[in-house]
Amino acid sequence: MNNPRSASPSVSLATSDLLDKQRQSSHGEFTRLEKRMGGRRMTFHSKSMPRGSMFLDKEASRNSHDKRFDLFRTMSGKLERQISNLRGKPIERSLHEEEITESLTADRFFDALHLQGPELETLKEKEEIVLPDDKTWPFLLRFPITSYGMCLGVSSHAIMWKTLATTDAEKFLHVTQVVNHVLWWISLVLLIAVSITYLFKTIFFFEAVRREFMHPIRVNFFFAPLISVLFLALGIPHSITSSLPSILWYFLMAPVLFLEMKIYGQWMSGGQRRLSKVANPTNHLSIVGNFVGALLGASMGLKEGPMFFFSIGLAYYMVLFVTLYQRLPTNETLPKELHPVFFLFVAAPAVASMAWTKISASFDLGSRLAYFASLFLCFSLVVRINFFRGFKFSLAWWAYTFPMTAVATATIKYSGEVTGVATQILSVLLSGAATLTVIGVLVMTVVHAFVKCDLFPNDVAIAISAEQPKQKKWFKQLKVLDPEDNQIDVEAPPLLNA
Amino acid sequence: MNNPRSASPSVSLATSDLLDKQRQSSHGEFTRLEKRMGGRRMTFHSKSMPRGSMFLDKEASRNSHDKRFDLFRTMSGKLERQISNLRGKPIERSLHEEEITESLTADRFFDALHLQGPELETLKEKEEIVLPDDKTWPFLLRFPITSYGMCLGVSSHAIMWKTLATTDAEKFLHVTQVVNHVLWWISLVLLIAVSITYLFKTIFFFEAVRREFMHPIRVNFFFAPLISVLFLALGIPHSITSSLPSILWYFLMAPVLFLEMKIYGQWMSGGQRRLSKVANPTNHLSIVGNFVGALLGASMGLKEGPMFFFSIGLAYYMVLFVTLYQRLPTNETLPKELHPVFFLFVAAPAVASMAWTKISASFDLGSRLAYFASLFLCFSLVVRINFFRGFKFSLAWWAYTFPMTAVATATIKYSGEVTGVATQILSVLLSGAATLTVIGVLVMTVVHAFVKCDLFPNDVAIAISAEQPKQKKWFKQLKVLDPEDNQIDVEAPPLLNA
Amino acid sequence: MNNPRSASPSVSLATSDLLDKQRQSSHGEFTRLEKRMGGRRMTFHSKSMPRGSMFLDKEASRNSHDKRFDLFRTMSGKLERQISNLRGKPIERSLHEEEITESLTADRFFDALHLQGPELETLKEKEEIVLPDDKTWPFLLRFPITSYGMCLGVSSHAIMWKTLATTDAEKFLHVTQVVNHVLWWISLVLLIAVSITYLFKTIFFFEAVRREFMHPIRVNFFFAPLISVLFLALGIPHSITSSLPSILWYFLMAPVLFLEMKIYGQWMSGGQRRLSKVANPTNHLSIVGNFVGALLGASMGLKEGPMFFFSIGLAYYMVLFVTLYQRLPTNETLPKELHPVFFLFVAAPAVASMAWTKISASFDLGSRLAYFASLFLCFSLVVRINFFRGFKFSLAWWAYTFPMTAVATATIKYSGEVTGVATQILSVLLSGAATLTVIGVLVMTVVHAFVKCDLFPNDVAIAISAEQPKQKKWFKQLKVLDPEDNQIDVEAPPLLNA
Repeated sequence: MNNPRSASPSVSLATSDLLDKQRQSSHGEFTRLEKRMGGRRMTFHSKSMPRGSMFLDKEASRNSHDKRFDLFRTMSGKLERQISNLRGKPIERSLHEEEITESLTADRFFDALHLQGPELETLKEKEEIVLPDDKTWPFLLRFPITSYGMCLGVSSHAIMWKTLATTDAEKFLHVTQVVNHVLWWISLVLLIAVSITYLFKTIFFFEAVRREFMHPIRVNFFFAPLISVLFLALGIPHSITSSLPSILWYFLMAPVLFLEMKIYGQWMSGGQRRLSKVANPTNHLSIVGNFVGALLGASMGLKEGPMFFFSIGLAYYMVLFVTLYQRLPTNETLPKELHPVFFLFVAAPAVASMAWTKISASFDLGSRLAYFASLFLCFSLVVRINFFRGFKFSLAWWAYTFPMTAVATATIKYSGEVTGVATQILSVLLSGAATLTVIGVLVMTVVHAFVKCDLFPNDVAIAISAEQPKQKKWFKQLKVLDPEDNQIDVEAPPLLNA
Repeated sequence: MNNPRSASPSVSLATSDLLDKQRQSSHGEFTRLEKRMGGRRMTFHSKSMPRGSMFLDKEASRNSHDKRFDLFRTMSGKLERQISNLRGKPIERSLHEEEITESLTADRFFDALHLQGPELETLKEKEEIVLPDDKTWPFLLRFPITSYGMCLGVSSHAIMWKTLATTDAEKFLHVTQVVNHVLWWISLVLLIAVSITYLFKTIFFFEAVRREFMHPIRVNFFFAPLISVLFLALGIPHSITSSLPSILWYFLMAPVLFLEMKIYGQWMSGGQRRLSKVANPTNHLSIVGNFVGALLGASMGLKEGPMFFFSIGLAYYMVLFVTLYQRLPTNETLPKELHPVFFLFVAAPAVASMAWTKISASFDLGSRLAYFASLFLCFSLVVRINFFRGFKFSLAWWAYTFPMTAVATATIKYSGEVTGVATQILSVLLSGAATLTVIGVLVMTVVHAFVKCDLFPNDVAIAISAEQPKQKKWFKQLKVLDPEDNQIDVEAPPLLNA
Repeated sequence: MNNPRSASPSVSLATSDLLDKQRQSSHGEFTRLEKRMGGRRMTFHSKSMPRGSMFLDKEASRNSHDKRFDLFRTMSGKLERQISNLRGKPIERSLHEEEITESLTADRFFDALHLQGPELETLKEKEEIVLPDDKTWPFLLRFPITSYGMCLGVSSHAIMWKTLATTDAEKFLHVTQVVNHVLWWISLVLLIAVSITYLFKTIFFFEAVRREFMHPIRVNFFFAPLISVLFLALGIPHSITSSLPSILWYFLMAPVLFLEMKIYGQWMSGGQRRLSKVANPTNHLSIVGNFVGALLGASMGLKEGPMFFFSIGLAYYMVLFVTLYQRLPTNETLPKELHPVFFLFVAAPAVASMAWTKISASFDLGSRLAYFASLFLCFSLVVRINFFRGFKFSLAWWAYTFPMTAVATATIKYSGEVTGVATQILSVLLSGAATLTVIGVLVMTVVHAFVKCDLFPNDVAIAISAEQPKQKKWFKQLKVLDPEDNQIDVEAPPLLNA
């Protein structure tokens, strides 16, 4: 009984009890269950894992013979199928696999009602998943694209400290460039580490990456690695180089442009990915890249390219801002755990303000327009403190750091333009808040990663089955009509020797 | 039988006849009815009131012992309850009171479908109210926040005449500054009078004020007193002072900022107050304050503060303009009586144009952009004359005055920039139209206040009960099933001695 | 049995067979059918027409005595009715006619769900039409307002070649002004030809024109003749005149202004024509006129007027851009055949860029903002090639030409500002693409007009009946309950001697 949802309550209670005991007593053991359900033979592997083995279980998992993980594997699935074909019993597995890789349409994913929790990763009660829910999956399968949120937070923070150190109005703080230096190297290492890990995921579990790309929230985080690199280029310490070659900018912005064409095109061309359906604050990530790119390009002395991206950013930011503020009835009320992403509202105008300042070569009324909008959004979110309390930590919390840092950096730039005690105080306050936010979230992340070992829970969002879950009403009626329904579940062998 | 809706038709007809007779014959008399309805004991007081006593009945009402009005009272309710507690029979009343003050959720209010008429103040047929419908309520309970619409109209008009008198291009009209002077004093007195009255309402009937603040239309009028003060500061005659201290501006704008954070935050954070649900033209009042504040601040010589509010105004005006123009399916078609508020469309860009002129220190392309948009909106509303005919007068008509005045003032400023016969003619035409509108609405108001005495009808919008009204279908079915339903109503004592 | 939908299946199959035979064998013959249906006497004329007679059948049709066409005729209907009145049997016809001309409410039309295909001109299966579906209608009835799309395409192309010939940066192409000259005369002749034809339609079939004006897609094409004239004024060869009198501009813009007040007013005032219901890419035609007018006015040296229209254009473009990008759930997914109109997205910002350049007298950041937005939209549409394949040719394809030409012209202007090889290559590429598009669509149009003779199919979109089609469920139930239903149809005389 791996999936308690499909079991009759009494049995599932019993089995989950057993499972708990099993988890506590028999670390490292493998339990094989075989069950017939609805005529389809499924092989479930229940592997309980010692706490702390999270980062070490990669090899172990890949050595295990849970065929379901193969469904997400790039090579092994095909290899094994070919081997099975040679052996002569290929039918059932390949059927199942095809179902996983082929028939999961985008519609099924964007049917976002079936996803809840931070980044829509908790499943609705009646949703079935294709991977085992009761054991820890291979690390790569649990490593989401949202991990790049950490890179965004730290690398933008490096820029803030660079700005603090180089702005005349903040000279009284005597900030050393060393902070920028240290943060920059940390963010570089972090970006490389995350990228290598995700590269491995792409190589070994391409299906999982494909599913993340089709996910209405996750797809926006595919901009995160690109933006992180832009941030690294912006925050590069003066001691390393003070001018990057402009050809670099074109190389960095090309993938941003292509990804935007893909995403914005989906918004317009209707269907299940139409904007009125998928709009959510993480869409800001798909906008903010334009402004960051414009800022970097203008900082490098380019003229037309940055303005090109600024135009795109402005046009689509307008669309997104209005759409998100309307809270269309087709957009579900976001689950409480997703509230941190609301802070992304602040990021786009803050970066836009800095970009426009570089493009127009002065902190003019246009820059102020964007900056003040960002400031007001920041205030109006901060005062709604209840909105940001009472839910457990997840990687989504990194969404607090990057916007806070962005508005703080914009404020420092503003204080460089409009000198005075008030702007200096505001700069210090916001920089302090941003730093505290980064430190706080960083500590939480470390605690959850290495102490609690629950930073990367099973990523159920990417494991939904392609089939629509049964309707409840229909289900109940059936239950009444079909008294044998219980018998089938009871027939499944209880965890006698677990 | 106070509430004819719950009565059987024959009985209600009889009682309403009696009520009419009672109204004509027994002025000042009190009628006490007691009725058992569904097991809940309710005490109804039917007090008929002489025509013309509207402004004088305050004391009389407060002396009356209609307990239901106490539900809206700030102090007396608690006091009386404490006294009742001492006397020993507190249960039923306090239960009822708690139901009124506690369980009326915002959702219930924003379920705007249950409200119709000017400012959503007419109830749907099946809606029940907690205050007696057949008698005139205490004046304070009938005095809505929308009364500040008068202040907006007159005080903005004072600014228009000040502009007319001081613009060189309009010198040929020989307008004296006396008109501005007179209007300014009138608007000052009016604002003080309305404010004192509303202050009394806040003190004595806080529950009623609380309910107005939760009302999707009314809440926007809470900006009206703030904007009126800003108008007074803008329209202050040169003979009194030509420069106000800039500290005043910060004091005036602080409450605007806080109120905006509250309202805009509600729009975004979803739930029943999400923008796609509550959007209506009166929302412009929550935007226009930003532009008026920016205009005042820039007139005082401030730089950053006005730009801050201009930014906020522009960002949210964009959201509101698009949302209102879309006429989302979730927004109900406005009732005909609410059509005057459509003129608020004109106000925001007109004021924004003037504010931008002050901020950028020239009537530049940005100012023209806003001004021409305002002018076009004005034209396109004026030509839809059928849209603004065929409904009876109410305080909502004051919504005509302030936008007309705003666009006229902006036109005068424009004619000062682009001199010529065409712009002068346009200025005179629009100023004339604005003046006629103000005079017309003023006369209507005076007539309805002092002659017809129906300016302040019972404010049923704030008296809806916290419970959802029964579904009609269910009701009908019940009626068939439960033949005793009629008997209950008949049992209620007819108005024998009314 | 002209309308097979109302017939019982067996009979309709038989009759349609007969109809096919009839089409092949008896060209030019008239068949008169009389049928009693539901007590209402209808006279159907089945006239089969030889291929190729499309442009010649005008007189023939008008000589025919198909009374139903009279319903759309301006004079003859009334005349005939008066004659009938004199003769003494006026009742039935006038009743039917009144039903056609009076009771067809706008709601019925905007119930767009009942229309499919290019420009919503294919009817849903169960929709009934008031004109004979099986024969070719009089040419004027089949000549839609969308024919002006050709004028837009060719006249804008004349401007592009004028710009190519006069821009210094494109001197290396050695483009002669002759191309502009030739194209301008072609577009003038085309505009006159289309206008005269449509004028005849207005005179002879006013009801058909009225119905086009009430159609949610078609109404936007009423801007097309106005914009075409503006294009002619913009593209006028230097050899004819280099400066037009500015009074001309006012004459040209007045009807644009009035039409806009009408259309935008409908968007706002709710009901069936609210924007959230009717929004579709052809709405861009109602916006783009503002920018074209602003461009022409500013080119003539006017200041305020062009800025007025630019403001209107910008305000409503913002509303439209956001609305169209949201793809609200109330907007149906557009049928594949209507996809070319998506290219209209590109046109407005391209023209706005040129207009702003003229107004601000420099290709400044504002111009770049609009131009780059247009360029990105163009790219993002071009890459979605699958979106624009697999549907048959119709006049809607002209929607490709005008936006492509607009973005090409804007690019040429841009290359004049930002000189360089990259911009020159882009100019040549886009101009080439625009030219190829125009030539391609032109050839297709000529082929379909003169070879295939199906350029102007029966315009069923304007011939829907005022009544809602019967509900299917109800229909089926009725069929079961009323066994005589078939008999009525069978009673109708089969096409024995057709």
